[in-house]
Amino acid sequence: MIFEKEKRGEGERCVRVGGAVFGGARLVLIAGPCTVESRDQMIEVACAVREAGASMLRGGAFKPRTSPYAFQGLCAKGLEFLAEARERTGLPVVTEVLETAHLSAVAEVADMVQIGSRNMHNSALLRAAGGCGKPVLLKRGMSATLQEYLLAAEYVLDAGCRRVVLCERGIRTFETATRFTLDLTAVPLLKERTWMPVIVDPSHGTGRAALVPPMALAAVACGADGVMVEIHTHPDQALCDGEQSGTPEMFYKLVKDLGVIAGAVGRTV
Amino acid sequence: MIFEKEKRGEGERCVRVGGAVFGGARLVLIAGPCTVESRDQMIEVACAVREAGASMLRGGAFKPRTSPYAFQGLCAKGLEFLAEARERTGLPVVTEVLETAHLSAVAEVADMVQIGSRNMHNSALLRAAGGCGKPVLLKRGMSATLQEYLLAAEYVLDAGCRRVVLCERGIRTFETATRFTLDLTAVPLLKERTWMPVIVDPSHGTGRAALVPPMALAAVACGADGVMVEIHTHPDQALCDGEQSGTPEMFYKLVKDLGVIAGAVGRTV
Amino acid sequence: MIFEKEKRGEGERCVRVGGAVFGGARLVLIAGPCTVESRDQMIEVACAVREAGASMLRGGAFKPRTSPYAFQGLCAKGLEFLAEARERTGLPVVTEVLETAHLSAVAEVADMVQIGSRNMHNSALLRAAGGCGKPVLLKRGMSATLQEYLLAAEYVLDAGCRRVVLCERGIRTFETATRFTLDLTAVPLLKERTWMPVIVDPSHGTGRAALVPPMALAAVACGADGVMVEIHTHPDQALCDGEQSGTPEMFYKLVKDLGVIAGAVGRTV
Amino acid sequence: MIFEKEKRGEGERCVRVGGAVFGGARLVLIAGPCTVESRDQMIEVACAVREAGASMLRGGAFKPRTSPYAFQGLCAKGLEFLAEARERTGLPVVTEVLETAHLSAVAEVADMVQIGSRNMHNSALLRAAGGCGKPVLLKRGMSATLQEYLLAAEYVLDAGCRRVVLCERGIRTFETATRFTLDLTAVPLLKERTWMPVIVDPSHGTGRAALVPPMALAAVACGADGVMVEIHTHPDQALCDGEQSGTPEMFYKLVKDLGVIAGAVGRTV
Repeated sequence: MIFEKEKRGEGERCVRVGGAVFGGARLVLIAGPCTVESRDQMIEVACAVREAGASMLRGGAFKPRTSPYAFQGLCAKGLEFLAEARERTGLPVVTEVLETAHLSAVAEVADMVQIGSRNMHNSALLRAAGGCGKPVLLKRGMSATLQEYLLAAEYVLDAGCRRVVLCERGIRTFETATRFTLDLTAVPLLKERTWMPVIVDPSHGTGRAALVPPMALAAVACGADGVMVEIHTHPDQALCDGEQSGTPEMFYKLVKDLGVIAGAVGRTV
Repeated sequence: MIFEKEKRGEGERCVRVGGAVFGGARLVLIAGPCTVESRDQMIEVACAVREAGASMLRGGAFKPRTSPYAFQGLCAKGLEFLAEARERTGLPVVTEVLETAHLSAVAEVADMVQIGSRNMHNSALLRAAGGCGKPVLLKRGMSATLQEYLLAAEYVLDAGCRRVVLCERGIRTFETATRFTLDLTAVPLLKERTWMPVIVDPSHGTGRAALVPPMALAAVACGADGVMVEIHTHPDQALCDGEQSGTPEMFYKLVKDLGVIAGAVGRTV
Repeated sequence: MIFEKEKRGEGERCVRVGGAVFGGARLVLIAGPCTVESRDQMIEVACAVREAGASMLRGGAFKPRTSPYAFQGLCAKGLEFLAEARERTGLPVVTEVLETAHLSAVAEVADMVQIGSRNMHNSALLRAAGGCGKPVLLKRGMSATLQEYLLAAEYVLDAGCRRVVLCERGIRTFETATRFTLDLTAVPLLKERTWMPVIVDPSHGTGRAALVPPMALAAVACGADGVMVEIHTHPDQALCDGEQSGTPEMFYKLVKDLGVIAGAVGRTV
Repeated sequence: MIFEKEKRGEGERCVRVGGAVFGGARLVLIAGPCTVESRDQMIEVACAVREAGASMLRGGAFKPRTSPYAFQGLCAKGLEFLAEARERTGLPVVTEVLETAHLSAVAEVADMVQIGSRNMHNSALLRAAGGCGKPVLLKRGMSATLQEYLLAAEYVLDAGCRRVVLCERGIRTFETATRFTLDLTAVPLLKERTWMPVIVDPSHGTGRAALVPPMALAAVACGADGVMVEIHTHPDQALCDGEQSGTPEMFYKLVKDLGVIAGAVGRTV
């Protein structure tokens, strides 16, 4: 398998996306709203998280929704606002692609293409993303074993892409106090088996804003190369997942705290 | 939601696929190999299961595989052999579609298009399948709640298709004695909430051929409108999932036993 | 292991409790309230389920409760009422023991001692129950693999008891539409590995009265030696688990339907 | 409920066991073998972990085993060796009690009585332990929701004990790469709802020695008041759970690393 650690030299294990380097000494901090809701909202959040120390922007233009009648994202307009947010902040952008038909539009704007949890087994999309020329952020399926997860990444690698980053985002268990169960042990386990950088999304992993800071700190303590968090200037008005979105103030404090933990494990923010 | 029982009259709740009618008094028995491996294999199995009492053929031309290096199916050739098997037996054919790009080719040959467990959250494929003109067999995602499952079906219904059949095929749990945990309670629960017919796949649900007959009987006893089982003339030589494939002899006996149980719940085979 | 099939001759595999024989051609139908609430209630339910065709009575005198402040059962008084219900109906009684200290009191009254799901790993209680002289009904732990379950039974067997009956009662999974996920595949799997009779409790397994009849039928169809269901004359007034309790009328119809399914698999009620 | 945060003043929330204070600024580091195997082994490990910085000793005299034929511990002899280890090191001792009958013997020797995962629903034992006069370490059941876990602790509190410490030790999920899935989000969630101190056992939670250090660091980063780890001088010769036991050298390094993380979150070791 291409994903195996010994298949790649030490110097080849980082994934660079604009100024952000996954797998280096400096953590990658991805922040932004769950969904791009409007130009003003996206620019406002982008500037706020950049100010607070983010190294990369996130925001959904195409949204995977459980119901066909839920808001599905601003689509092309959303990509446009993401591009503008990048221009204003200088931060690279990652955004999700839901289907092969949208891939070229997404890849044209995004600095990194995200494949979400619900598509981790979508091999056609994995292969297409692996051939689109952009780095790929592949989230773990909500009931995927780590072995299945690595093999899904292998589809992307096999399609020619070597800039793949993994992201633990919670698995499905019997526990109902959280939206998913964040499986942080996946971090050292994945890093033992693969050279691919590993980040953690505590926003989806827990489903509650108050739990995001402690779990982000824990992620870094056990070796994550970065975190991805949902930030909204008005979480109570968010069109999607407001209960798991933090504020820019929360993120500002989180970056400071992450800096201290990062220092404790020989890294920086 | 279109899926709700009261949204559809009694007479509109059956899904007809050739001579097979899902949701009627007569159970639909779908049988065939996991994968179409060759023309001879497909014809041989098709004739054998027809002889034994199958009302519909199954067989994978495009296979979803965990590893990119595993056998991915005969693709177009597989569809061709399925068409020939239908001609020889007169039985309608259901086969899986993995991506939108293959949909027209699959829909041209198949009498019913299957969306597998790994694609249950693939909304682009759900919508496309819903618009392809053929009935759709939608399998439950391996970690999907019943609510999420019904909403995935709603994507297909919302795209214009009204001939949707649901299929319980096992969920992911801690138990390792079986490949998945067959959640048969889903059958009465789904039938309570929706007018869509519901069948059960005990081959994937258990992962072991010896467990298929008892669980097929149980499925019918709790109200399933049919079963879908993997049958191979030489399970030990199967290219895929041999351990869960039964033989035509097993299937012959199963049909007889299903007939008795069907009679006990007011149905026939 | 003593539990292995080959360790016991065909004729030794039945467990007789009064007139009820677990593992014989005739199914054992255990019915009664979740909790013994009063003398009148117990006698009333007992007479009603006997009338409907029950072969054994159930009723909790000592109740395992999640909260220390919930009703914990009538204790000694409950045992007394159970004894009276037996006298009135002639049906043998099974009731749960929660701790070693109560064992002699319970074993004096009960015809069969039940160890519940929450105590499946309580090896001290398993050993004590195995030495109390009465047959033991051992329920599966809610997150126990089948291997762990059989080894828990081995504790009872090793303590000298050979009259042990197993009971699948639902496992813990991510699904929230039911209280637990009834794992019916456990029935053929256990029967393949052990000589011990296996019954199913669809009341706890589903948590909803309307789901009990279809799942009881399914249990028998896949080989269960009996079922255990909660019946209350006034489920809406039950002190405990009312939503999963059926009425005597429901039970009466269920026994008739079970009779038909039983006939289909070569058994009787 | 007694467990609720507002029911207890700030100053009453620490649990003191000898020199170890759970819930204070200084983390409690519990270390020792899974099982007390011999006097020499226990003394050797105890001296080694004390040297490395442990604040408390662990070691099983009575062992809960899945099979009745597995080694069940040295029992009374084991307690004796634990007492001797305490004398030699000055460190307080925690050890598990499996049944009420052993409680007085265990409580006489132990500075803190442990109730293990398999007994979390054993209400008789919970109540008895709550009345034994010693502080109680209550591990989370392997399929217990946090609500059920807190209610189990309430049984101990209701019996009069106020010195209860909680311990996350992994839950049962579909993932097979680890023995259990360590649910670290339980740490901030429990600390939000209760005043009881919370520690983490990454040895059982992961089942592999190499994963213990990163997960111990993560536990402290998200707010745990201590960790409990299995240490053996010769893990490959351990009678029980050798694959999850670290060496004294590993522990020595872990304590140093924990010190740095502790500093980053305003605590010490």
